[in-house]
Amino acid sequence: MKNYRPTSVAAALLATVVLGVSAQEQKGVSEAEKNYQAGTSPLTATPMVQSTNPKAPPMSLAEFDAARKIYFERCAGCHGVLRKGATGKPLTPDLTVPKGTDYLKIFIAYGSPAGMPNWQTSGELTEAQVDLMARYIQHEPPQPPEWGLADMKGTWKVTVAPADRPTKKMNSYNISNIFSTTLRDAGEVALIDGDSKKIISIIKTGYAVHISRVSASGRYLFVIGRDGRVNMIDLWMETPTNVAEIRIGLEARSVETSKFKGYEDKLAIAGAYWPPQFVIMNGDTLEPLKIVATRGMTVDTQEYHPEPRVASIVSSLHKPEFIVNVKETGKSLMVDYSDMKSLKLTEMGVARYLHDGGWDSSKRYFMVAANQSNKIGVIDSKNDTVVAVVDVGKIPHPGRGANFKHPKYGPVWSTGHLGDETVSLIGTDPVKHKAHAFKVVQTLAGQGGGSLFLKSHPKSRHLYVDTPLNPDAGLSQSIAVYDINNLDKGYKVLPIGQWAGLPDDGGAKRVVQPEYNKAGDEVWFSVWSAKDKASAIVVVDDKTLQLKSVIRDPRLITPTGKFNVHNTQHDVY
Amino acid sequence: MKNYRPTSVAAALLATVVLGVSAQEQKGVSEAEKNYQAGTSPLTATPMVQSTNPKAPPMSLAEFDAARKIYFERCAGCHGVLRKGATGKPLTPDLTVPKGTDYLKIFIAYGSPAGMPNWQTSGELTEAQVDLMARYIQHEPPQPPEWGLADMKGTWKVTVAPADRPTKKMNSYNISNIFSTTLRDAGEVALIDGDSKKIISIIKTGYAVHISRVSASGRYLFVIGRDGRVNMIDLWMETPTNVAEIRIGLEARSVETSKFKGYEDKLAIAGAYWPPQFVIMNGDTLEPLKIVATRGMTVDTQEYHPEPRVASIVSSLHKPEFIVNVKETGKSLMVDYSDMKSLKLTEMGVARYLHDGGWDSSKRYFMVAANQSNKIGVIDSKNDTVVAVVDVGKIPHPGRGANFKHPKYGPVWSTGHLGDETVSLIGTDPVKHKAHAFKVVQTLAGQGGGSLFLKSHPKSRHLYVDTPLNPDAGLSQSIAVYDINNLDKGYKVLPIGQWAGLPDDGGAKRVVQPEYNKAGDEVWFSVWSAKDKASAIVVVDDKTLQLKSVIRDPRLITPTGKFNVHNTQHDVY
Repeated sequence: MKNYRPTSVAAALLATVVLGVSAQEQKGVSEAEKNYQAGTSPLTATPMVQSTNPKAPPMSLAEFDAARKIYFERCAGCHGVLRKGATGKPLTPDLTVPKGTDYLKIFIAYGSPAGMPNWQTSGELTEAQVDLMARYIQHEPPQPPEWGLADMKGTWKVTVAPADRPTKKMNSYNISNIFSTTLRDAGEVALIDGDSKKIISIIKTGYAVHISRVSASGRYLFVIGRDGRVNMIDLWMETPTNVAEIRIGLEARSVETSKFKGYEDKLAIAGAYWPPQFVIMNGDTLEPLKIVATRGMTVDTQEYHPEPRVASIVSSLHKPEFIVNVKETGKSLMVDYSDMKSLKLTEMGVARYLHDGGWDSSKRYFMVAANQSNKIGVIDSKNDTVVAVVDVGKIPHPGRGANFKHPKYGPVWSTGHLGDETVSLIGTDPVKHKAHAFKVVQTLAGQGGGSLFLKSHPKSRHLYVDTPLNPDAGLSQSIAVYDINNLDKGYKVLPIGQWAGLPDDGGAKRVVQPEYNKAGDEVWFSVWSAKDKASAIVVVDDKTLQLKSVIRDPRLITPTGKFNVHNTQHDVY
Repeated sequence: MKNYRPTSVAAALLATVVLGVSAQEQKGVSEAEKNYQAGTSPLTATPMVQSTNPKAPPMSLAEFDAARKIYFERCAGCHGVLRKGATGKPLTPDLTVPKGTDYLKIFIAYGSPAGMPNWQTSGELTEAQVDLMARYIQHEPPQPPEWGLADMKGTWKVTVAPADRPTKKMNSYNISNIFSTTLRDAGEVALIDGDSKKIISIIKTGYAVHISRVSASGRYLFVIGRDGRVNMIDLWMETPTNVAEIRIGLEARSVETSKFKGYEDKLAIAGAYWPPQFVIMNGDTLEPLKIVATRGMTVDTQEYHPEPRVASIVSSLHKPEFIVNVKETGKSLMVDYSDMKSLKLTEMGVARYLHDGGWDSSKRYFMVAANQSNKIGVIDSKNDTVVAVVDVGKIPHPGRGANFKHPKYGPVWSTGHLGDETVSLIGTDPVKHKAHAFKVVQTLAGQGGGSLFLKSHPKSRHLYVDTPLNPDAGLSQSIAVYDINNLDKGYKVLPIGQWAGLPDDGGAKRVVQPEYNKAGDEVWFSVWSAKDKASAIVVVDDKTLQLKSVIRDPRLITPTGKFNVHNTQHDVY
């Protein structure tokens, strides 16, 4: 299995791309971060390469600096900034130094069956870079700076003040059928008109936007880059564009807005990987209001973890609460935003390491993947309790999961897996299907491992499962589709990659993330290729399972996640 | 003003005294702490003396180790383990290195009017030790190890299991009038019979017990040492003694038990200075159940603080909650213990740096000192809100404060100050005295600064104020007492030090901590001297303000806080 990642990003771009700040913006950047970028520690003001570990192989400051940037971009997501391990193994010097440079080089170059990518043989790192990284990880991990309120405010911009925004919709787009599409390596999102399939606009955002979320009213779109930059886009403007922006950390994955009755569009929240914290913001302006650190004790051994990253956030519909899922501690936090001066947090233990998840069809139970525990936690948003922790396949990765009505077991929520080919269906109706509630009721055999997303829709009778990380190109470029009324019949394969009709430019294509249109009669797939290669979006007719159209545009650079406004706004999946 | 501290503790004793573990107990101590004691970092396994700061003056490993122990004992309380500053100034190398060794030596030797003790001229540190400390604080602070569930369990002992304990009171003591008296430098508490004034037993505890607390039923006594050791004493036994023990951190100050209806005696809680965390324990056995880290954002600038220490804890009578006051972040946490699996925390911002505090007479409002902000925060335990933050004198230090009925303003709660001679009286009745509620209604002039504790009692018409830290021996050895019905008349001075009738052994005496007996007709004072000098407890008749008796006993080594069982059990003060 290979990791999902872009191919070579020019090293020269890394300085700005990775940290996501242009020279111009550095004015708003704290001294702490400048030191970090310049390769010095904010704690010691000493070049990092002066490792306290005498056995760490020597590195020049320039080498260390280059390695740190590569680590941030390629390695930190799985291994953690402090290298304590999560999806990837721990890489602290007590473990790496005894292995030695030669061993580490082989491991980095060739990868492992357990999920470590083959960085050198895939062409993504040079031999010299592999040598660099093998030496780098034998040094103490440099601790990135903190990012407090002053740092956030230094990057906060309201480009169109609320008073200057339109009071009604100023365009003729069918807003609720727009797809906010991540253009990963371009640091942009494309707003694509779901009716005409035309690009409405390309909006500059943070690097590698992880998700898009839509405010309760459907007016505002929030996106967050891996670099922690949040953009707020007003869909009512003649040409929808950014109206506010903030950087909430150095690395981040999650953003959400308040959806509970009475709080619609009032607040936004974003969760960071580094520093490990989340921030509640004004929903009109992104003004940072309240920062909460997530550093704390793990769910099982109750040991202190210095880097419990915020993996995903969702807004409760039953209470004025956000559900904040913390990866390394394995805890879900119910964050009551009704009184910011007396902020109430309910801390619930689930399992390590929490990742993504979604609502069941009733939108009462939040299903969250504990990926390295091979479990799904079920959180009751009405009672703020964990009602079940369900064993599923290997490394569940549901995205938001897929809900549909099983002919035998009633409403189920489903997840695919990174680590095996199965799809787990979990009963979610404790009232009419009590015996099957929060148990795996059926396990489907799929095309193969390496699945990231699966999707269905209340109006559809299909379940689509991608396998973009499967090493077999045939599987990574096709989609399995199940008839939910005849699950035992297995799946059909849709050759989405072929349907894209892209030129044979040598770029490896991967088909990723099914997403329905508002009506629920079309499914969109990204056919993702490298930054300098052609990509496309393929639209399938949900009834006939035939190709409906292909969106090809030179501006569609590395498209990944697509978020239909209506479905995202109403949590339809 | 001088700090309240013991005189010379033999350096040879420090190794065990400071970390509070005997060689025998080391079996239960984690590898991490052994490394810390041995002068190596758990993170790097490298001698700490290899400072990353090239300008830090050289130190041998042995010197560094000795200095770290002195720092822990003498300096950490005010300056923090990580030297970020709190009651004392920050002492990180970016600040200390530019000052240089010579400047620092003078400062340490002679002290400052702002509160830094004169360590050398007082004879408490030698010239060589002052030189050592001046060099030590120019190095990076070594980070002590974490202390998680496994570490706690390794030190947890149930010496008498609940099933083996008596089912009724087995002694003839009037338990509710026992005084649990800290014998600071002996690492013991003395249980003193309040009726006969005789010592019932001397019980081995952690070092420098900070407080005693009594369970809701009055049966169990909990004490916590500065070294984080909690002892649980069963007062029903023929000779009351320890029945359980645990070490909850490396440095600590606070312990409490659950008092809300239905939870009496069910749980205990202890808060640590290092690591910054608290732990909820089984109230019968001290089994650690749930650890919560307090590291997080400061109340004002919302910056991350790595060392927010738990300053004080009190049990709510209105909800199943503990109020945990966190020093460096300036936040009070309402910790709902009714469901440990879904632990609810309400985080309320007050002001930096939170220290001690007590209930108003209605036991609804908790009054907490923010000592470096010169404020008292008022927490409504019924609504979990901060109802006021009141400006008072310089560095309020109330202990638990003193409640009495003011002839004009109704119920008031009062605090003395370390930094000035005043006593601030705050109205606490928002119903019948609304205009004066949570405002300073009167400021009394006292003997001088350096006050630690003041006390009154519902059955008394007096208010006693100590000044043990006043540099004037006349003031540090006497008590000011006010007639609460004639506050404008000023105070009388009680020459408690003289009344103690101790031999002139050259030991500086300090009179500290008034404490009433159960009946409220006697007030007890500690006349505290050095470990190798004679100390005493002086008992005053509250009506006549005359000497009633003196408790002199060679076992009364460095007596400080005295906690009357009834008054502590029922929060009478």
